[in-house]
Amino acid sequence: MKKVKGQFIWINGEHFYEIANYDQMKPFFISLASDTDLWMYLSSTGGLTCGRRSPGEALFPYYTDDKITESYEFTGPRTIINNWIPFSNHQQPVCKISRKIAKSTVGNQIVFCEENHTLGLRFSYLWAPAGKHGWVRRATLENLSKEPVRIRLTDKLQNVLPAGVERKTQNEFSTLVDGYKKTELVPGTSLALFRMEAILVDRAEPSESLTCNTVYALGLPRADYSQTESKGVRGAYVARSTFNLQPLSSQTWYNVLDVSKDAVAVHELMHFIATPKRAIKAIEEAMRQSTDALIRIVHKNDGIQLTGDEANDARHFANVLFNTMRGGYYLNYPPQSDTEDLPLTFGRRHGDPSRPWNLFNIHVQDENGNPVVGYQGNWRDIFQNWEALSYSYPLYTNHIIAKFLNATTADGYNPYRISNEGIDYEVIEPENPWSNIGYWGDHQIIYLLRLLEISYKHDPQKLRALLHARQYSFANVPYRLKSYAEIVADPKNSIRFDDEEHKRIQAGNPTPQPLTTMADKLLITLLTKLSNFVPNAGIWMNTLRPEWNDANNALVGYGASMVTLCYMRRYVTFLQTLVQTDIQIATETLDFLRAIRHAYSNGNTKQFTDIVGTAGEQYRTKVYKGLSGEMQTMALEELQDFCTATLHKIDESIRANKREDGMYEAYNLIRFTDHDIEISHLYPMLEGQVAVLTSELLSPEQSADLLDAMHASELYREDQRSYMLYPNRRRKTFLELNNLPDEAKSLPVVQKYLGSILKQDRDGGIHFDAKFRNANELPEDLKDLYEQVFNHHAFTGRSGTFYKYEGLGCIYWHMVSKLLLAVGEVLQRTELENPATPRLLMHYMTIREGIGSHKRPDEYGAFPFDPYSHTPSMAGVQQPGMTGQVKEDIISRWFELGVSVQDGQITFSPMVIIPKDFIGDTLQFDYCGTHITYRLKIEGEPQIAYLNNAKATLTKEQSAHIFARDGQINNLELQLCVK
Amino acid sequence: MKKVKGQFIWINGEHFYEIANYDQMKPFFISLASDTDLWMYLSSTGGLTCGRRSPGEALFPYYTDDKITESYEFTGPRTIINNWIPFSNHQQPVCKISRKIAKSTVGNQIVFCEENHTLGLRFSYLWAPAGKHGWVRRATLENLSKEPVRIRLTDKLQNVLPAGVERKTQNEFSTLVDGYKKTELVPGTSLALFRMEAILVDRAEPSESLTCNTVYALGLPRADYSQTESKGVRGAYVARSTFNLQPLSSQTWYNVLDVSKDAVAVHELMHFIATPKRAIKAIEEAMRQSTDALIRIVHKNDGIQLTGDEANDARHFANVLFNTMRGGYYLNYPPQSDTEDLPLTFGRRHGDPSRPWNLFNIHVQDENGNPVVGYQGNWRDIFQNWEALSYSYPLYTNHIIAKFLNATTADGYNPYRISNEGIDYEVIEPENPWSNIGYWGDHQIIYLLRLLEISYKHDPQKLRALLHARQYSFANVPYRLKSYAEIVADPKNSIRFDDEEHKRIQAGNPTPQPLTTMADKLLITLLTKLSNFVPNAGIWMNTLRPEWNDANNALVGYGASMVTLCYMRRYVTFLQTLVQTDIQIATETLDFLRAIRHAYSNGNTKQFTDIVGTAGEQYRTKVYKGLSGEMQTMALEELQDFCTATLHKIDESIRANKREDGMYEAYNLIRFTDHDIEISHLYPMLEGQVAVLTSELLSPEQSADLLDAMHASELYREDQRSYMLYPNRRRKTFLELNNLPDEAKSLPVVQKYLGSILKQDRDGGIHFDAKFRNANELPEDLKDLYEQVFNHHAFTGRSGTFYKYEGLGCIYWHMVSKLLLAVGEVLQRTELENPATPRLLMHYMTIREGIGSHKRPDEYGAFPFDPYSHTPSMAGVQQPGMTGQVKEDIISRWFELGVSVQDGQITFSPMVIIPKDFIGDTLQFDYCGTHITYRLKIEGEPQIAYLNNAKATLTKEQSAHIFARDGQINNLELQLCVK
Repeated sequence: MKKVKGQFIWINGEHFYEIANYDQMKPFFISLASDTDLWMYLSSTGGLTCGRRSPGEALFPYYTDDKITESYEFTGPRTIINNWIPFSNHQQPVCKISRKIAKSTVGNQIVFCEENHTLGLRFSYLWAPAGKHGWVRRATLENLSKEPVRIRLTDKLQNVLPAGVERKTQNEFSTLVDGYKKTELVPGTSLALFRMEAILVDRAEPSESLTCNTVYALGLPRADYSQTESKGVRGAYVARSTFNLQPLSSQTWYNVLDVSKDAVAVHELMHFIATPKRAIKAIEEAMRQSTDALIRIVHKNDGIQLTGDEANDARHFANVLFNTMRGGYYLNYPPQSDTEDLPLTFGRRHGDPSRPWNLFNIHVQDENGNPVVGYQGNWRDIFQNWEALSYSYPLYTNHIIAKFLNATTADGYNPYRISNEGIDYEVIEPENPWSNIGYWGDHQIIYLLRLLEISYKHDPQKLRALLHARQYSFANVPYRLKSYAEIVADPKNSIRFDDEEHKRIQAGNPTPQPLTTMADKLLITLLTKLSNFVPNAGIWMNTLRPEWNDANNALVGYGASMVTLCYMRRYVTFLQTLVQTDIQIATETLDFLRAIRHAYSNGNTKQFTDIVGTAGEQYRTKVYKGLSGEMQTMALEELQDFCTATLHKIDESIRANKREDGMYEAYNLIRFTDHDIEISHLYPMLEGQVAVLTSELLSPEQSADLLDAMHASELYREDQRSYMLYPNRRRKTFLELNNLPDEAKSLPVVQKYLGSILKQDRDGGIHFDAKFRNANELPEDLKDLYEQVFNHHAFTGRSGTFYKYEGLGCIYWHMVSKLLLAVGEVLQRTELENPATPRLLMHYMTIREGIGSHKRPDEYGAFPFDPYSHTPSMAGVQQPGMTGQVKEDIISRWFELGVSVQDGQITFSPMVIIPKDFIGDTLQFDYCGTHITYRLKIEGEPQIAYLNNAKATLTKEQSAHIFARDGQINNLELQLCVK
Repeated sequence: MKKVKGQFIWINGEHFYEIANYDQMKPFFISLASDTDLWMYLSSTGGLTCGRRSPGEALFPYYTDDKITESYEFTGPRTIINNWIPFSNHQQPVCKISRKIAKSTVGNQIVFCEENHTLGLRFSYLWAPAGKHGWVRRATLENLSKEPVRIRLTDKLQNVLPAGVERKTQNEFSTLVDGYKKTELVPGTSLALFRMEAILVDRAEPSESLTCNTVYALGLPRADYSQTESKGVRGAYVARSTFNLQPLSSQTWYNVLDVSKDAVAVHELMHFIATPKRAIKAIEEAMRQSTDALIRIVHKNDGIQLTGDEANDARHFANVLFNTMRGGYYLNYPPQSDTEDLPLTFGRRHGDPSRPWNLFNIHVQDENGNPVVGYQGNWRDIFQNWEALSYSYPLYTNHIIAKFLNATTADGYNPYRISNEGIDYEVIEPENPWSNIGYWGDHQIIYLLRLLEISYKHDPQKLRALLHARQYSFANVPYRLKSYAEIVADPKNSIRFDDEEHKRIQAGNPTPQPLTTMADKLLITLLTKLSNFVPNAGIWMNTLRPEWNDANNALVGYGASMVTLCYMRRYVTFLQTLVQTDIQIATETLDFLRAIRHAYSNGNTKQFTDIVGTAGEQYRTKVYKGLSGEMQTMALEELQDFCTATLHKIDESIRANKREDGMYEAYNLIRFTDHDIEISHLYPMLEGQVAVLTSELLSPEQSADLLDAMHASELYREDQRSYMLYPNRRRKTFLELNNLPDEAKSLPVVQKYLGSILKQDRDGGIHFDAKFRNANELPEDLKDLYEQVFNHHAFTGRSGTFYKYEGLGCIYWHMVSKLLLAVGEVLQRTELENPATPRLLMHYMTIREGIGSHKRPDEYGAFPFDPYSHTPSMAGVQQPGMTGQVKEDIISRWFELGVSVQDGQITFSPMVIIPKDFIGDTLQFDYCGTHITYRLKIEGEPQIAYLNNAKATLTKEQSAHIFARDGQINNLELQLCVK
């Protein structure tokens, strides 16, 4: 067995990470980035899909990752050199070969290399984007031997798609699509046109297909391309050439692929390739420019660091790259106005072939190559990317907060998706069984809070001033939460869709709503959550959509979130700090607040919940009728009293949720009885611990204890040195699953239904008819028995029934990075001298190492500098690229570098200084576009690491220049002296 | 290159066709039949899908044929014997191997065999259905050498699907589906359960997955199955075993696969496999019974023939098998009543992975294994299968006619689909861009006519009596054809959907319609067609749906069918023979007829068309208001006059459509001008020639001339010795396609739009912007120019834009078999002594040979005894199994055997007697269940073939026994004396 080995190397002046013998690893999936709308996803097998803009403009079929991984023998490049077929597992003369794969740390190029030791030949090819030219494949064949070799070469690109095929059509009707295909070679050239003879429509009307995908080749001597022409079959680009390869020399050639060219563009191409040498030069130049452009973008967003830790630098670059690809970056800075305008470019909807329910759409440049302003994305994705972005462009933070607040509804929730053009909410589509409505309450508190905190750190007075500005609007979502009594009776059916309002919105004529203050908005969000507060259980999730982890979506209805409650704790604490004067809020809000406050007098859980629930209902009733627009002054004292009382109530609940094993409950189940609410617990979840650490309730000591408890618990996965979302559980086997307990067999109800709904097997076991997938359609008198067998009350959702994504045994890296950030925050609040500091630091380092940039490729499962979404139990990392993880890791990086902001002043003070993180004596990074150099001075005997308490703080004015990126302070050098 | 060779062989007592070195052929696709709901489609590569009932209950993914063909390395069986991997093209030690594939002539078993000459081993496996047990794979490893061999065996079934995955989900979301998979091994057994941990739903509710797909193995010594268990990945059944194989001995083992087992069924299986020897015996017995059952079904339907031509016998068996699988056969015979009841069983909706738009659903047995009565299918599919069936079960013919007539509408058309529960029509689905409405007018005349002819031959008096019975109803389809003027103005938009009536129908409360007579029904159908008669052009197709060939669907609107006109000619002739008395028809029909008759006085094309079109409109206006139910007597003389006049008019038109090359136009284009209708011609089509030959207009001499002309034309494809639907045409290349003619470039309108809708390339060419796929959205002043460039008036539909199915260069075998039948019919009408007879016979034989049962496998592209739908220009036969062709070939076979019926009497008189068609001196076949033996007596010097004029005719009484299948005449032996 050949050994897998990873290392950073340079190829033609570009920096790569190379994995030798990658074919000994399980196939892994890779995303290539580009500076334009070019996209590519490929497997380490060589199977790939790529194109421009969207899956509808693909050069190779856009199927799910499992299919792309398998497709390599029939899709994509295939080269035959004499009798040798590199990268194929197809039958061929047995030669001694070895393979390598390398990805550029910029993230836009990949190289496959196979050396044939028997023949003394090495073949490699690279994929790279080249802007307006499209995707480039550059292939090189080297003669490593001392003899000349006669080469008979067949070089193919298989299964090239024609222009004009929809993703779904290709997926479901590929055999029909094949019947329409025609591949033409422009006479006398290497230019092939991949076309549909017509666009597929079922109408009896002509539908001319007037664009084509194109492939041409450059650099192959005396090549014949005639086998490319075909009709009615999958397209393939076929080049054949015979040439001599001198000893220790090589031959290089190019394929250039692009989509959707019209006649004018094809004529352009014909001229372009008429002078091949010039064309090659232009292509190489475009590849370089593409890399430069990507570096420039990442550079602008503080993604370039130069430290002694290459792996770390590469990972940080990738984190910033993917964060920017998701959320975009600002075209104009600093902002020109005080609105919610966000002149973002480069962002796109995320999606990749391992997430078939997400489809991307990249629109980053206009026809002239100029950046396009715009953004769109799910609420819960895009704000997190903007949060990380705000550390580098802090002056837009209040704009983001405005966007956030303006996109919350008067009843206190947020819509599904936002874009520069407004908001989207879900609508029931009768034809689509996957369609559904509800409020995705996740992150509402914590996202807003983190944005507010950033704003506050950079300019507390500005934020305080905004509190009073009556300039915030309400999003109009036609969901109508039912009455409290209705929701209690059926919490899984809590929303009415207001068809009338929906139609008015569609018609551009929604019911107008008054503007309000930020203070009002901040309170409404909090009060809405509090109106669902079930003491000792958490925030009742009754808006049909889950909190963070939608694989736990079945918690909705009977689940209560301690996670949200923990975040509310920090939110309330922050409000206490922020608000220092009386505020203006809507009359309705003030009434709401007072009604909630009323609940804090004693009473049992049910009584409390009834009062806050009813308060929520009363507030909504007014809101749905139309806000009055009346504002009232709320005295600071009343707010302070409210916050104190609320905190008291929250803290009581968090403390009550400490488990015997030292961890905390994340979600609980509630069950309404006549006079009270029964609370039952679930298994521990990583999210709950992150939330408690983030809540700021625990002391450093308590935090360290919790981290110790987690490390000792079943959440920890030894093989990956990291934490799962929940302990891996054994599911019942098929034979165990649907079985009546022995003691139930003699019940009259069993006898009643035996032979109809209940069935007996020949070994005496009794089973529910397999068609009853839940109790809904069972007769009433069987429901208890069914529940006894299946325990659906504790059903948490998909998380308990699958093995990928957020499923059983999986590490979901985004949550691990949230944990890292939370521990970093605890450390920031902790004195260096605190006895808990070393323990906390040890946990921080351990979690960080688990994330993986220093892992071996075969341990990680892919290029370790690339972020991925999750690691299931049976394979390496999955879902490359745009994971939420990158945002947390970017923020944690500021902590590691010791950059912090307080009251508008920047402080540099890394808590730990590790000499090997320096190149020589320097460590360089960018912050708000300012180039920072740390220069290390070691006094005395060198150590592996130093704790550091010293700090350098800039003045407000200096800091303001940096925040504004005004060019006044382009470089900053700081000396770190340690001993 | 190893040579491909086909031959019939016997394997373990079963009859097979074997192709040696099939791996030298392009991969081909195969359908396996079964006597139950078990289905399997596989590629000669070994890739496959199979399951029960529908694609939703599959054991391997149901993808399109192109994907299944490629899937063989990752899906289905994979065996590793020491280092040898049979049937793989994956890298392995280079051995000398040879491969064979064999399919049983019963059609339900397939064998893959690979011999490793280097190792002296032969490995083969068979797939066979085994009724309630599911699909069986029987594998055998033979040691051909004289030394014992130590075998290390890994035997896998890869990518086994769990129960409970929808086809679309698997297709689009397979990577997600994988996350839910769990494969369990029942402890201590070889039984593996392939499950989803939950059923995929996006609702936050539990959805228990309580069934599983199952695989177990029998017969492997000391096997270990533990590698089968897995979670979160594709299921695979893995057996490992190590054993010694003695010289010249073999080891056989079994896999048995089934779907959707509940807990009770799994317990059953556990008991079943507890005694492996008994289980193997039971499985073998079930495989045998499954074959026997299939033979019994085909036998009942006259599918078994025993002649000297094995290939022919096998093809006939296959034809009857597939005709029965489509249309079913009767459970009760003779019929008990005189209704439209058809107690059919075994039929199913057709569909296979090469027709992704058709999905099958097999429901042929109830839970106890008893046949289920029912049928469903597209109108144009199912009646053709019933036509062939009626030769074997003639006494149901009038039931089928009743079903046919009752399923036509009062306005003279037929619905989309029929079933034993009624009719279906298409409805516009706003969400589905492929949905559409319209009347599929195809086959309406010719299907009905052929059924009437069969009825008439068997019992003319009975049919005549039915003419007067007022017992026929109207189908209620809520389509409302517009007024004649509206249709003329926009013939591609001719139907209004009557929402009100649709709702009434849905509610089970349609507008009642009176019953009427058969005579009335027969006339309405004819008059409706005549009301669209454009003299010299054909029957105007203005009901939004095409005639036979829906790949020509764009003809609808401006196309006129000479094909239908030809069939009408024979229909009218038949009416003249059939009707010998006054008849009772509806007042509305009589008015309609007289209005049409009025048009036959002179006038130009437009005047004629206006009159008949207006007659149609007037008739429809009454019908849509509700038929009066009033009947009137129509005198025989009036009908005779009408028929004569109609025939005169039709014949004029057919003759006018003779082309210069001796062939006839099939479809024409019409264009309404102010005072007339311009007619333009298209290219010749095979369908048009078939229709003219069928029309009975031509003399034998003229028919032979037409066939000569066809053979000399571009319709003929030399390589396949057969006829394409139309001549293959060269399509414009991309660079030729969208180009303004030079002379147009200076037009003012070009200058006006240059740079916007028109674009100039750098070589001076001017092109329409690629987004204009047809002229619809262009400004009015550009439409003419667009038409000049694209000639959309002559756009016929998909047929001109694709290369598979009915596309360019394709032979569509159903139409070839219609040609064969048509020539056979001409021969039946021709005296032996006619000088045209030898020419006609020569054409008959040539067409028949072209169809292919005697072709070499590599010429045909698959097993030559299997019917396939079409042969494109770039590959062998495509779409195995249920092609309409089988019906024509079954009927032609009666002609070849010389079986005919006239006036209730059966005559045996083969026109040509070929001694090599006999085994020894006998040729045996079944006819209406009676076993017929032809015994050949040759006098004088033997010849290759004899023309025969002698005939044996049974009495009416004898014939009636045979028609009734009453067991009175089970065997019949006839001596054929030739000299």
